[in-house]
Amino acid sequence: MRIATTPQLPYYAVVFTSVRSEPDPDYEVAAEEMLRLAAEQPGFLGAESARNVEGFGITVSYWSSPSAIRDWKANAEHAAIQRLGRERWYRSYRIRVSLVEREYGFDG
Amino acid sequence: MRIATTPQLPYYAVVFTSVRSEPDPDYEVAAEEMLRLAAEQPGFLGAESARNVEGFGITVSYWSSPSAIRDWKANAEHAAIQRLGRERWYRSYRIRVSLVEREYGFDG
Repeated sequence: MRIATTPQLPYYAVVFTSVRSEPDPDYEVAAEEMLRLAAEQPGFLGAESARNVEGFGITVSYWSSPSAIRDWKANAEHAAIQRLGRERWYRSYRIRVSLVEREYGFDG
Repeated sequence: MRIATTPQLPYYAVVFTSVRSEPDPDYEVAAEEMLRLAAEQPGFLGAESARNVEGFGITVSYWSSPSAIRDWKANAEHAAIQRLGRERWYRSYRIRVSLVEREYGFDG
């Protein structure tokens, strides 16, 4: 995993915070497949993801517009995986759609 | 770590994505101290954090306004730790300040 290289402002960030339920190898496969699928979606700009050993995770995906985010949410394959997520993989999650207004950083 | 309980929209999210350098026990102490200090700052609404075993981490903190974020950035103790972060703890990081426009979730 690397820090995403995002374009000039403005763009959108979707912050997906989640608590996993019991370990399930199918989850890892589906998570990778979703990243691959998202990357093919129009308006996708990049993504970053981290999960700690207790199963608390944050994935941030970057998008060009709210309509690109809506289209990804409605993608049929993604919608099926969202249902599996609620049924099997997540104890709870929160999604926050936000407009990035400022960006800066450091490269050592 | 838990999913933050945030108030009604609108509010701000600061997405801090980072790659750690070599392990350093001082880092963990400083990171916890910074979360404690941030929580005392006016306008702080909550925070979430996850780092994977490879040292890639995402911390999201939530704030009531851009001025609350600026005040936290300028906090003297925080500024000193930011310098240490660049000198010792982080290989690279990226900070994205964003306005949260939509929020929804799931509790199983």
